[in-house]
Amino acid sequence: VEKSRTNSGAYLYEELKKYSCKDFYPFHMPGHKRQLSVGPASDFPNPYGIDITEIEGFDNLHHAEGIIRKSMDWAASVYGADYTYYLVNGSSSGILSAISAVADKAGTCGSILMSRNCHKAVYHGVFLNRLKSRYVYPQFSEEYGIQCGLSPVKIEKMLKQFPDISSVFVVSPTYDGIVSDIGSISNICHYYGIPLIVDEAHGAHFRYSNLFPVSALELGADIVIQSVHKTLPCFTQSAILHLKGPYVDRERVERFLQVYQSSSPSYVLMAGIEQGIWWMEEESREKMGEYSKELLDLRQELGAMRHLRLLGKEVVGTKDIFDLDISKIIVSTKGTEINGLQLYERLRREYHLEMEMCTEDYVTGITTVMDTKEGLERLEQGLLRIDSSLGGNGKREEKRFYKEADWPWEMEQALTIYEAWEGEKEPVALEESEGRIGAEFIYLYPPGIPIIVPGERVTKEVIDTVLRYKKMGLPVQGMKYKSNEIMEVVKDGQISCN
Amino acid sequence: VEKSRTNSGAYLYEELKKYSCKDFYPFHMPGHKRQLSVGPASDFPNPYGIDITEIEGFDNLHHAEGIIRKSMDWAASVYGADYTYYLVNGSSSGILSAISAVADKAGTCGSILMSRNCHKAVYHGVFLNRLKSRYVYPQFSEEYGIQCGLSPVKIEKMLKQFPDISSVFVVSPTYDGIVSDIGSISNICHYYGIPLIVDEAHGAHFRYSNLFPVSALELGADIVIQSVHKTLPCFTQSAILHLKGPYVDRERVERFLQVYQSSSPSYVLMAGIEQGIWWMEEESREKMGEYSKELLDLRQELGAMRHLRLLGKEVVGTKDIFDLDISKIIVSTKGTEINGLQLYERLRREYHLEMEMCTEDYVTGITTVMDTKEGLERLEQGLLRIDSSLGGNGKREEKRFYKEADWPWEMEQALTIYEAWEGEKEPVALEESEGRIGAEFIYLYPPGIPIIVPGERVTKEVIDTVLRYKKMGLPVQGMKYKSNEIMEVVKDGQISCN
Repeated sequence: VEKSRTNSGAYLYEELKKYSCKDFYPFHMPGHKRQLSVGPASDFPNPYGIDITEIEGFDNLHHAEGIIRKSMDWAASVYGADYTYYLVNGSSSGILSAISAVADKAGTCGSILMSRNCHKAVYHGVFLNRLKSRYVYPQFSEEYGIQCGLSPVKIEKMLKQFPDISSVFVVSPTYDGIVSDIGSISNICHYYGIPLIVDEAHGAHFRYSNLFPVSALELGADIVIQSVHKTLPCFTQSAILHLKGPYVDRERVERFLQVYQSSSPSYVLMAGIEQGIWWMEEESREKMGEYSKELLDLRQELGAMRHLRLLGKEVVGTKDIFDLDISKIIVSTKGTEINGLQLYERLRREYHLEMEMCTEDYVTGITTVMDTKEGLERLEQGLLRIDSSLGGNGKREEKRFYKEADWPWEMEQALTIYEAWEGEKEPVALEESEGRIGAEFIYLYPPGIPIIVPGERVTKEVIDTVLRYKKMGLPVQGMKYKSNEIMEVVKDGQISCN
Repeated sequence: VEKSRTNSGAYLYEELKKYSCKDFYPFHMPGHKRQLSVGPASDFPNPYGIDITEIEGFDNLHHAEGIIRKSMDWAASVYGADYTYYLVNGSSSGILSAISAVADKAGTCGSILMSRNCHKAVYHGVFLNRLKSRYVYPQFSEEYGIQCGLSPVKIEKMLKQFPDISSVFVVSPTYDGIVSDIGSISNICHYYGIPLIVDEAHGAHFRYSNLFPVSALELGADIVIQSVHKTLPCFTQSAILHLKGPYVDRERVERFLQVYQSSSPSYVLMAGIEQGIWWMEEESREKMGEYSKELLDLRQELGAMRHLRLLGKEVVGTKDIFDLDISKIIVSTKGTEINGLQLYERLRREYHLEMEMCTEDYVTGITTVMDTKEGLERLEQGLLRIDSSLGGNGKREEKRFYKEADWPWEMEQALTIYEAWEGEKEPVALEESEGRIGAEFIYLYPPGIPIIVPGERVTKEVIDTVLRYKKMGLPVQGMKYKSNEIMEVVKDGQISCN
């Protein structure tokens, strides 16, 4: 049978089963790390057995008044939210719902202030609501080649300068675990009378240990969205959205959660959310103690690397210093003879360690309470051995293999995302696109943060970066013409409503 | 531990496990009927073991070029589509994507012609794209109190009368299995040069037996959306979208599938789709033979009912005769001493048979190839016994327990859905709302077909129907003020862009 499945093309299921028996170790999502003997998976039944629909006694996610309502209320009490919603369509659906709920629809072109390093779902939310987006750019660590957090001072300046801003959306922590000063940012937002939405997709675990940063929910954010599948033992595609305080209309949030999520939500995913949070809250203490110790040991041992460098608890940005969620293992290759992609490949090929992602300058690994001691030791050994195999002259900063990444640059916005993405387009050679208005998203996935957004004017830096990424073999996505170096730009004559 | 979970509120997971051991038999979705010993569930591993993310070798649903691409191409070949897409956010996400892909954004108020008995996701798609919706109303069976299919003649008249219509969206089969003449409708659409989208959520099984109607995909539809979880052995929330022919821009569909679905799609759901279709296509022959025989037997035996009536293969509408998908068991209570809700409750309480849904006049049960002989016999016995317990004078049509449902009435559209749902609102007593413009959806769920849509003018029939449904205890949803009989209407002075 298997032979014929391969010939037919229908072998995703078979390959998943095969892969689960292999010795590749996941330093990537989902947070359950495929551990079957401990945590929520250890007594999970055949999923078809509990995969029901909205029958008597089992409530309705979209009009929760019974067992689902109680479960979500319990989750709200665990996290300290006024209301918590289980999301079966990922943080993406929470992001779309949050933006739609707070979008000012009165004018034809309302405005949202967002950090430019947001996930593409945020840009999709801006697009669907036909909003004008204004950006605050993250700071940058020259030393590690990594994007840092946001400056509250800059956000305040923007709010003062642009009174049309009716909401603020930031990502914290970043994909790499760097947190911004959400306390100050939320104070500023509330001073101006507008809500703050925080994409805390990578921070669902914060509340379970003092080792981690404080959650945005405790620091004044009005809507906080967390991917429970990223760092908790929950299924891929499951997430939660928290509401707190008086700045957001709960009914609008609920309306849009209905719009952006299946009307047949999966009870397996919902049960997995409850069970994952339950295990974290009630049954993970011992495991969390072991994990904390192993994580700190790992970080200490990796301090001995001579060429590669582990990102430490504090990260120096352009102006501010930012905290790091130390569960993230960020290893910079800056100043070594290899780049991020090469380190990623060596870990995979030589040590069967599957990392979460890489960029030009570094590799990111996700650790969670579900990691095993053996897994963390394999990572330690792998990194130490690769490090010792690297040549070096002791002056890391001098030895450069590639042009330095100096994104993000502040881009000119000629049109809104809606105008450019839905407008008339034409293809041009990427190399000849400078000065044209882009009509597509281009991003590396992961992390899914756009290098250029529809409506932004193409610069030489964008062209160089995309070409360089493609040459390096990094996962450039979003371009319509995949095989050629052609970009879709707005046809001349497209007008703006601003 | 269980005790404390109940006190905490976190007992969804425990209750699902308990329910799976009970003897309630499902004549509802999902189509796998929780059968663990046969079909795809029989060798399904612990779901956490195969719940991965987009790692090397496992492709990316949103940029499928490898193993997922191959699997979807295989599914396309099974169904005879040009392209097939796995949906992890239900048919809802396919519906939103399809409408967004074909929406004419050039004008501020494009128009879509849709059947008025569409699922609320279709109305959400109209809302998000700020479209003007025009409606074709389904015919009605006076005899059974059930909505029927659509008249191609009416659709042609509408296309002739309103040249601003740029796409047509119909549901076929209905929730109750009644199919329209899609061949004629698609010919008409293509004559006018516009695409036809068919919500075939309840027809994913059509192609696997000659007992069932022919799929819209074989009859000329351009986009066909099927809920594999409804009638195939697949997980809740999983669906597929098929594209065929030159009328729809594939890249626009793919763009919006990315927008409306999680950027972390579940491999468990995707594997479940593949495995469910594989089993149907390659391994279900014997089971399908048994099921067909048992289904025909069941339908024959139910013909002996004296008061209740089974809906037969042909349904007489107001003008046309429509085919029925005979896998649906529709039992009308019209002319008996009980109503649909009472029959539903008796089946549940006395026989532990959980039906899919009920309305005033009938009960709907879903059968699939995964049903057991024992389950079908329980349904037969339950219905026959209830029937024989009912009094009757032999003149079914005379004995009326309740006012006849005569929805749908053609409603006046004063504003678009977007204008009314996003505009300023005020609450009024439902009884005093006649003549006002509604600002919320009101529907029974299931099936989720709106009785009134935002922007429609409230009529006496709407008020009477909603009040009657509420009094009967039918699941009226969508109203902001749940406990009171209050409706949100548009504040006076709201203007239309039409």
